[in-house]
Amino acid sequence: MSLTLYTNPKSRGRTVRFMLEELGVPYDTVVLDYGTSMKAPDYLAINPMGKVPAIRHGDQIVTESAACCAYLADAFPEKGLAPPPARRGSYYRWLFFGAGPVESAIMDRYRRIENDAEAQVMAGYGSFDAMVAALDVAVRANPWLAGEDFSAADVYAGSQIDWPMQFGMLQGTPALNAYVERLRDRPAYRRAKSLDDG
Amino acid sequence: MSLTLYTNPKSRGRTVRFMLEELGVPYDTVVLDYGTSMKAPDYLAINPMGKVPAIRHGDQIVTESAACCAYLADAFPEKGLAPPPARRGSYYRWLFFGAGPVESAIMDRYRRIENDAEAQVMAGYGSFDAMVAALDVAVRANPWLAGEDFSAADVYAGSQIDWPMQFGMLQGTPALNAYVERLRDRPAYRRAKSLDDG
Ligand SMILES: N[C@@H](CCC(=O)N[C@@H](CS)C(=O)NCC(=O)O)C(=O)O
Ligand SMILES: N[C@@H](CCC(=O)N[C@@H](CS)C(=O)NCC(=O)O)C(=O)O
Repeated sequence: MSLTLYTNPKSRGRTVRFMLEELGVPYDTVVLDYGTSMKAPDYLAINPMGKVPAIRHGDQIVTESAACCAYLADAFPEKGLAPPPARRGSYYRWLFFGAGPVESAIMDRYRRIENDAEAQVMAGYGSFDAMVAALDVAVRANPWLAGEDFSAADVYAGSQIDWPMQFGMLQGTPALNAYVERLRDRPAYRRAKSLDDG
Repeated sequence: MSLTLYTNPKSRGRTVRFMLEELGVPYDTVVLDYGTSMKAPDYLAINPMGKVPAIRHGDQIVTESAACCAYLADAFPEKGLAPPPARRGSYYRWLFFGAGPVESAIMDRYRRIENDAEAQVMAGYGSFDAMVAALDVAVRANPWLAGEDFSAADVYAGSQIDWPMQFGMLQGTPALNAYVERLRDRPAYRRAKSLDDG
């Protein structure tokens, strides 16, 4: 069954490439450019948002980098990148924490927006520091976000932390720094990085 | 195995109650109050964010409403609220679209923030209208977000649309309005609503 990654080397598509390299399965890469091929009718049929990444696997189309990671973990169960269905509490918790609270906190920081007390109650991430503190509790409890074993939650939520750390937008705690080092040490992380950095 | 919902009737916990009512399994409800019992040590041990909802199912603890829905669908596979693992492309796509882009777009609208052209490229939801348009494409293609069958993606992402529609923060298209009507017609939706509204 054919497997294609639609991406740009300078995009969240890097996270999905990391996931694909963890799986070690063959895939094709289609590089799309900002503003041009990303907004062309062919690609809008795959993702009406005109954004990368997306994947196509046989007749399955997936957008949203977190969804691509979760989908791929389930499509290749023999690779062991998701816990068994009845034990996915932490797995889903951190996947969605990465897609919701972490993503929003980083975008707000990028746009120089801070939540006042009222917005903290409504916003999934509360304050930037509360978001970081919750992640810190998680990585102090276990080596990986879903527990003892590395999973797609680390590929995705780990990348959501790694990226703003690289740009100085997130100051890690000692436990978070050590966690991100473990992530960066993975052979798949390094392969994905060198493929995207060319 | 015991199953507990930690919630407040005026919170995103409503979505998880809708999911529990769809499953039709027995569960306990612990109501927590804003600013007091939500921030007490007992509950911070469950969710260091001091936010609801959360669930506890045996030894599994889940926070993030989307994660609670995805977890519960997998924990009770006989209820058929998630597609089989190899066919979860649209399922995960819309679950994560609800947790990321829809959530951010609504929070920005609530805070009266609009993305300029540069922020639209970075932000997962681009513009509010692009987010609504992508959902419209999805509900015009299929009766439910994951395809022919109702799933946890509808419980969660559907609730993410239903809620701002009720508050006049999201103007539905004809297809989105019809979709949300189908959602509101579900017996589990009505049961959950009356349990929370008392
Ligand atoms: N929530 C989406 C975000 C996708 C996204 O915003 N991608 C950016 C690059 S990182 C993009 O394609 N922007 C192009 C545009 O909006 O024109 C995800 O996690 O995949
Ligand atoms: N991303 C979280 C958001 C949780 C959240 O922000 N809950 C609000 C109520 S809807 C809350 O508990 N606020 C209390 C507080 O922050 O003190 C989810 O989807 O569950």
